[in-house]
Amino acid sequence: MSHNAFGHLFRMTTWGESHGPAIGCTVDGCPPGLPLTAEFIQSFLDKRRPGQSRHTTQRREPDEARILSGVFENDSGEQVTTGTTISIVIDNVDQRSKDYGDIKDKYRPGHADYTYIAKYGIRDYRGGGRSSARETAVRVAAGAVARKVIPDVTIRGALVQLGPNKVDRTRWDWNEVDNNPFFCPDPVAAKEWEKYLDGVRKSGSSAGAVIEIVAEGAPAGWGAPIYGKLDQDIASALMSINAVKGVEIGDGFAAASLSGEDNADELRIGNDGQPRFLSNHAGGILGGISTGQPIVARFAVKPTSSILTPRQTIDRFGTETEILTKGRHDPCVGIRAVPVGEAMMALVLADHYLRHRAQVGQ
Amino acid sequence: MSHNAFGHLFRMTTWGESHGPAIGCTVDGCPPGLPLTAEFIQSFLDKRRPGQSRHTTQRREPDEARILSGVFENDSGEQVTTGTTISIVIDNVDQRSKDYGDIKDKYRPGHADYTYIAKYGIRDYRGGGRSSARETAVRVAAGAVARKVIPDVTIRGALVQLGPNKVDRTRWDWNEVDNNPFFCPDPVAAKEWEKYLDGVRKSGSSAGAVIEIVAEGAPAGWGAPIYGKLDQDIASALMSINAVKGVEIGDGFAAASLSGEDNADELRIGNDGQPRFLSNHAGGILGGISTGQPIVARFAVKPTSSILTPRQTIDRFGTETEILTKGRHDPCVGIRAVPVGEAMMALVLADHYLRHRAQVGQ
Amino acid sequence: MSHNAFGHLFRMTTWGESHGPAIGCTVDGCPPGLPLTAEFIQSFLDKRRPGQSRHTTQRREPDEARILSGVFENDSGEQVTTGTTISIVIDNVDQRSKDYGDIKDKYRPGHADYTYIAKYGIRDYRGGGRSSARETAVRVAAGAVARKVIPDVTIRGALVQLGPNKVDRTRWDWNEVDNNPFFCPDPVAAKEWEKYLDGVRKSGSSAGAVIEIVAEGAPAGWGAPIYGKLDQDIASALMSINAVKGVEIGDGFAAASLSGEDNADELRIGNDGQPRFLSNHAGGILGGISTGQPIVARFAVKPTSSILTPRQTIDRFGTETEILTKGRHDPCVGIRAVPVGEAMMALVLADHYLRHRAQVGQ
Amino acid sequence: MSHNAFGHLFRMTTWGESHGPAIGCTVDGCPPGLPLTAEFIQSFLDKRRPGQSRHTTQRREPDEARILSGVFENDSGEQVTTGTTISIVIDNVDQRSKDYGDIKDKYRPGHADYTYIAKYGIRDYRGGGRSSARETAVRVAAGAVARKVIPDVTIRGALVQLGPNKVDRTRWDWNEVDNNPFFCPDPVAAKEWEKYLDGVRKSGSSAGAVIEIVAEGAPAGWGAPIYGKLDQDIASALMSINAVKGVEIGDGFAAASLSGEDNADELRIGNDGQPRFLSNHAGGILGGISTGQPIVARFAVKPTSSILTPRQTIDRFGTETEILTKGRHDPCVGIRAVPVGEAMMALVLADHYLRHRAQVGQ
Repeated sequence: MSHNAFGHLFRMTTWGESHGPAIGCTVDGCPPGLPLTAEFIQSFLDKRRPGQSRHTTQRREPDEARILSGVFENDSGEQVTTGTTISIVIDNVDQRSKDYGDIKDKYRPGHADYTYIAKYGIRDYRGGGRSSARETAVRVAAGAVARKVIPDVTIRGALVQLGPNKVDRTRWDWNEVDNNPFFCPDPVAAKEWEKYLDGVRKSGSSAGAVIEIVAEGAPAGWGAPIYGKLDQDIASALMSINAVKGVEIGDGFAAASLSGEDNADELRIGNDGQPRFLSNHAGGILGGISTGQPIVARFAVKPTSSILTPRQTIDRFGTETEILTKGRHDPCVGIRAVPVGEAMMALVLADHYLRHRAQVGQ
Repeated sequence: MSHNAFGHLFRMTTWGESHGPAIGCTVDGCPPGLPLTAEFIQSFLDKRRPGQSRHTTQRREPDEARILSGVFENDSGEQVTTGTTISIVIDNVDQRSKDYGDIKDKYRPGHADYTYIAKYGIRDYRGGGRSSARETAVRVAAGAVARKVIPDVTIRGALVQLGPNKVDRTRWDWNEVDNNPFFCPDPVAAKEWEKYLDGVRKSGSSAGAVIEIVAEGAPAGWGAPIYGKLDQDIASALMSINAVKGVEIGDGFAAASLSGEDNADELRIGNDGQPRFLSNHAGGILGGISTGQPIVARFAVKPTSSILTPRQTIDRFGTETEILTKGRHDPCVGIRAVPVGEAMMALVLADHYLRHRAQVGQ
Repeated sequence: MSHNAFGHLFRMTTWGESHGPAIGCTVDGCPPGLPLTAEFIQSFLDKRRPGQSRHTTQRREPDEARILSGVFENDSGEQVTTGTTISIVIDNVDQRSKDYGDIKDKYRPGHADYTYIAKYGIRDYRGGGRSSARETAVRVAAGAVARKVIPDVTIRGALVQLGPNKVDRTRWDWNEVDNNPFFCPDPVAAKEWEKYLDGVRKSGSSAGAVIEIVAEGAPAGWGAPIYGKLDQDIASALMSINAVKGVEIGDGFAAASLSGEDNADELRIGNDGQPRFLSNHAGGILGGISTGQPIVARFAVKPTSSILTPRQTIDRFGTETEILTKGRHDPCVGIRAVPVGEAMMALVLADHYLRHRAQVGQ
Repeated sequence: MSHNAFGHLFRMTTWGESHGPAIGCTVDGCPPGLPLTAEFIQSFLDKRRPGQSRHTTQRREPDEARILSGVFENDSGEQVTTGTTISIVIDNVDQRSKDYGDIKDKYRPGHADYTYIAKYGIRDYRGGGRSSARETAVRVAAGAVARKVIPDVTIRGALVQLGPNKVDRTRWDWNEVDNNPFFCPDPVAAKEWEKYLDGVRKSGSSAGAVIEIVAEGAPAGWGAPIYGKLDQDIASALMSINAVKGVEIGDGFAAASLSGEDNADELRIGNDGQPRFLSNHAGGILGGISTGQPIVARFAVKPTSSILTPRQTIDRFGTETEILTKGRHDPCVGIRAVPVGEAMMALVLADHYLRHRAQVGQ
């Protein structure tokens, strides 16, 4: 049990505060012999990196990952994992030296300020400290390692709703996801969202979002009954991301309105002689175990709590006051949550692959 | 790490198959000195017990819990916990001796039949075996013990949606929950649901549901940042319940459509000099830590997969066939999931109370 | 984390008090498809069963294990594990109804009476309650399951010292272990020990012992560096047995007196082309990982604390008094610790086999 | 479960290789508000630091610990823990650039070279890589944090045997421990050991040792029955230290030779009205739970495996060869194991203090 660790066999422990010297993680339990370089990790970090469009925070963090342990040159001169703990560190570069006076004592609504003080009696208030979404950079780094463990699984994410605006699924194109600043699979929606989010930002407001993560290539059999369920661990993983308020698998909440007949994913034998499902309401998981179909999960992100519009609050001395949060914030934190969601899915699947291999063999 | 255990400090491990001799659990880590009798546990089991109305399965299980260890008479002659493992056993009584031939080899759509075979190569097919919702009786028993750990917390559940039909929240009355067979807080909706579910049952179909669980009385400070988040563990707990496809906290998916201003739970100082939130969009949790407000979670249950309408499927020999599931099934498993959801919430909160006490003291 | 569970992937949780209705355990994480019957488990329990000679307690417990879950008939009609939780129960039969008045309030020196009260404020004093060595019956049952997981590993134990009397290792014969009531591999020593232990028993005293456990057939590579060390987990396993005060691996404490040259287990290539060690000072483990040589561990058991000679003590009300423990006790609990030590070794190795398979594959 | 982590509630995960850029750890679960500075940690690291006498390795490592997260200035301007992950990093400074050719492919007897290759197929051979005793520096750092959690407990260690030479316990003086390069509590023995170890070193050999760790001030009640036993976790902790081959608690292996009467720690009421033990054969632990007496543990360290005397071995290509290990090695690694043993004891006790507080309150 650990407050800052995730996973059982493939296990990441993260550390670091938003404005401390660095953030990082250890990855324990990684199989040996997997090619792993800082460059590979970097390619995923770059997707999450702030400051890449006007729609994300203007904080300028290079987010450069260094690997301090757990990889070594094999006989071919390739950097591979050794099976020992992988330590990854990302220095904090752009911690603007500034006066934190206002958020030092005031509780920002929607933030963890009040609850950290209620729990610990002390908090690193600089930039949100430990509760800052900056911690998710580390998840992306660890998620990159996880992908190496399950190379046959393709994990992709997309923003399917920005504020109240949903994508049109008939226009879904995975290739579009990298063509706009929203990870949006619907090019028409992406265009509209630009204007929408500009309006939100200019009005000093913020917007929520819904992200969909799809993992293809996982075989039937991963997961475990009852309390090691694959969907349970996906729910845990996604709900652990900052600002997430809901998680669903497959049809999710919509399944509650279906009839039993409509919800049944019927089975036939495919041309390859293998079982073939005629639909995927279940989102690729039955009884907590993967069916071999795409694993589909969605999560809802609340609107960024740091807004320019003043809100009523109190300070830690019990005085009523109000606060508005200046500074460089994402008008919609949901956007940069896309690579984070992918990373969490990768972490869950890598862990369950190893758990499956332990109990059942390969 | 354990496939059949839940919780860290207050830890339940469950065992048993639907038609085996018994089901049960161990509860490890319970504080000593808490009054605990089989009768207390029974009072919660009775809420989940099948056969209490025409709207639930007609299987007749007394579901009598026996405590085999971990309690002892104190000096006052009261049965109290001793701090050692509590073993609870519920005998399976109504396992009708019958021919399981049909479900023995065929995979029922929506069930775990296929995935268990894909994973393990063998399954106890009788009544669903390990994947049967019968396992949830044990959760309710363990949840009763958990309630003893956090006596100041009131945990209640209600069905807020049956099939596509939602309650009217303006009519919410907790007292109504025990007055109808649906745990419905809205007496008008409850009436309508009777007819609706009769129709579903008669047509050989089934319905899904959404359940809301509210925990009141937990102080600010429970939970932990990052991967020991209270909402994360609630999501894990609720998603582990059979047939659950979605979980949300507070406003949940609706939060994605809110503006940052509307979503902010502003703070004032109450008449008692304590912090007072003006709203509870967050569902009582910020940054993974409780705020002291009511903790609000919802989960979506898919329609019962066992239906009388034939569905296409295959058997484990790779032959295409079809199946319909006769027998005694809940037309809506979501109904009896209400006490199960309450129990899971109690397990999470008891665990986090102990975790909080460990790190921070009381 | 769990106070009453052992192992990570192959995980046993035990429950039960000496004079409660039953004792038992759950085994979680067992691979599927392993043949397992109550009879197989019974064969190991019978080795530990009390009342088999005058040298062990005269309590008459049949120690009959029942399997309540986790096994099912495969297509060949054989009972095999299903991969779900295995629940094993052993009823307590010979709980003599008697007046516990004396041990109810007095703290028996060398027993856990005082510490349980200091910790929990309450204890089941009947027959030692949870701290009774009776709990070890359950370990033997779970250990039998563990042996099924690693069928190529042979695990054997022997008593190598009774009181101050050691075996002569030049006379070591594994076949002798079952020919005397001491699990002694030296037939000459076994004869002498009969007289010695008769004397101890008649004088109302008790004796300690040292047990050696040898596991042969484990390949090189099990274990893990740093905190998942195989020897570390063996030390933990053996030290968890009642009354154990010391554990050593290979040469153990004697290694401290060796020179570096003498301690080095030199390597050659064997006739089979495989690495061959010329000695085994290391006890089959280097750097926490198995070498492929026999794994050798020893543990020291203190003399039975329940003796007929009166000792000074206090009661829980703070009054000075004295106590002598009548009743049916083992004059040397170390004897029946032999099958328990074997079981713990089996549990550690089964767990590490699965852990190894998870990280590295087979 | 984690291969490179220790502890449950107070949990350290370590990372790093001997000749990589750095080593370090995360400490998760630390209570908030504890004063903690790098200087405090340094004071313990300095005790373990190499190169302080001719009796330890001449490697020159400053072993400077930096704290990268988890501490923050409180209102008094003091650095205190915040309750979030503490990340500690120690840079590797003295990694001599050299040709590792010889140990690159050859397996050094007594080292983990062969087993790492057997397990992982690859190893960082530079200076022993992950299996180097250098990792223990990190334990000392984490142990310093652990001491802050249990400020009322005094933990001290001493070398009680060097090679075959034991201290005379009648001359035991804790103050002498810091007056000689051996952490020896017997000034006469310390003098003799100088000559002895000079001889060992000059002959290209090495020596083993036995270390005793004593913790005073822990109250009765820490620990847990069955598999969360305090002595079990101490055994696990000490056996995890490099080169350790045996662990004992209290009288340890000598207890096997005692009679039940002699082994009984009798109880009286002390002048303060509290229970008072008349002896401490048990080493401060009964039934896995602390008695309130000093907790006494010993562990045996084998002679350093890196010796100048050539030994037969093979290389990873299956060729027979021989090896002698030049370089800067401790002639007796047991000496610098003293602060490491103290640190492991501190980690176990801090963890159990939190576990106790969780279950029972303070």
